Amino acid sequence: MKMHAFTIENIPLVKEGDDIASIICERTDIEDNDIIVIASTIVSKAEGRMFRLEDIIAGENAERIAAKLGLDPRFVQAVLNRSHEVLVEFPILLVETDNGHVCIKAGIDDSNVDNGYLIDLPTDPDRSARKIGESIEERTGKNISVIVTDTNGRAFKIGQTGIAVGVYQIHPIKNWKGQKDLFGNTLEITEEAIADEMAGAANLLMGEGDGGYPVVILRGLEFRSEDGSIKEMYRSEREDIIKKGLRCLSKV
Amino acid sequence: MKMHAFTIENIPLVKEGDDIASIICERTDIEDNDIIVIASTIVSKAEGRMFRLEDIIAGENAERIAAKLGLDPRFVQAVLNRSHEVLVEFPILLVETDNGHVCIKAGIDDSNVDNGYLIDLPTDPDRSARKIGESIEERTGKNISVIVTDTNGRAFKIGQTGIAVGVYQIHPIKNWKGQKDLFGNTLEITEEAIADEMAGAANLLMGEGDGGYPVVILRGLEFRSEDGSIKEMYRSEREDIIKKGLRCLSKV
Repeated sequence: MKMHAFTIENIPLVKEGDDIASIICERTDIEDNDIIVIASTIVSKAEGRMFRLEDIIAGENAERIAAKLGLDPRFVQAVLNRSHEVLVEFPILLVETDNGHVCIKAGIDDSNVDNGYLIDLPTDPDRSARKIGESIEERTGKNISVIVTDTNGRAFKIGQTGIAVGVYQIHPIKNWKGQKDLFGNTLEITEEAIADEMAGAANLLMGEGDGGYPVVILRGLEFRSEDGSIKEMYRSEREDIIKKGLRCLSKV
Repeated sequence: MKMHAFTIENIPLVKEGDDIASIICERTDIEDNDIIVIASTIVSKAEGRMFRLEDIIAGENAERIAAKLGLDPRFVQAVLNRSHEVLVEFPILLVETDNGHVCIKAGIDDSNVDNGYLIDLPTDPDRSARKIGESIEERTGKNISVIVTDTNGRAFKIGQTGIAVGVYQIHPIKNWKGQKDLFGNTLEITEEAIADEMAGAANLLMGEGDGGYPVVILRGLEFRSEDGSIKEMYRSEREDIIKKGLRCLSKV
């Protein structure tokens, strides 16, 4: 098996209203089963998902948390506005967003902006992936998948990896349940988080800072499906022992 | 930027004493800066890191935990023997191994074995990576990196991904600190967990069960370094809020 991964060159600085599908199709050929990996930053910019701190009024809770962290209270208010639950206030502001995604500072990006604007995650990343994917398919006649990505930290280990926040025509989890291993033993339930693995693979080429390449194509794999949603990846409440631990800590 | 990833074909069932470097070099060319990604399972098999439950006597603690989980107490004893700390007993047996690695059941693999043997992680995966890497370099005259991998679950999300457990000549974390973003703003400390992203990328091709390809080459990247250790990736105690949460839970 093989996979070829490559960046799309010369993507301009994206601004509100830009047609990302068009930008992509003008710069590369597309093949069936291609997985188009797109950094959420440019999706948000095209969708106008930017805001300024001066438009936010911080409440008491935001002031209290901001004081602990040394952050601007208006920024903390922005995080709270997007969060279903705060799991950790200090030393990191870890929340579960309204989308069910657990991340630091609700995924708000305060880099790569100009004029004091901050960038939100897209409101509905699956929908964003679908709109771009359908447009690419219409222009090219090919059947493809799209993964919208962010970079997140993780428990127990230093560092961030690329992760999937929205998908189009790919299941984020590949289910190996019931298959046999090399010796005929039935595999335990094994669920491979392929969308996150693809996001990480793409992030190796995307870079950060000055050298950013926000679109990467993964070619040669066969994981495309007729549907798929990022929601397949989030744990149900009853299963999530880590969340229970963090809530325990916030009570003491 | 681009990356080409491919599996090594026709790797035989590995047994104790097999020379993995030799098996690899006989089946593929090697180029400078190649990253050879190797599933820990075959490293462990070659190193003889297998054991049988009938050789283990379960203590009281193992009996108690095994009863909660419906597991064989001897298996739980094997996990405890390899663990520095038990973070969660139920519903998952999550431990920190003596190596500092946090994973379920100390990474003991009870699939892909025959004759009732279970497979341990290698005792020192960095060392395993180095021995194989140095041997490949000696045979080929090329300068390469090696990553030894396992698959692990993660907090907050369903599914497992390929992750790095040992490295040779690559830093598991790439540090983007102090660089500028596209607008000249200084980036916050950004540490990219490239070894885990590579492990995930390789895992997309490795497969599970019957179709396993335990060695993948990632070609076209430039991340090789003169040194590197998996230890660079593990959080210090004082930083680890998730561990604190889990310990809190075990007290109530």
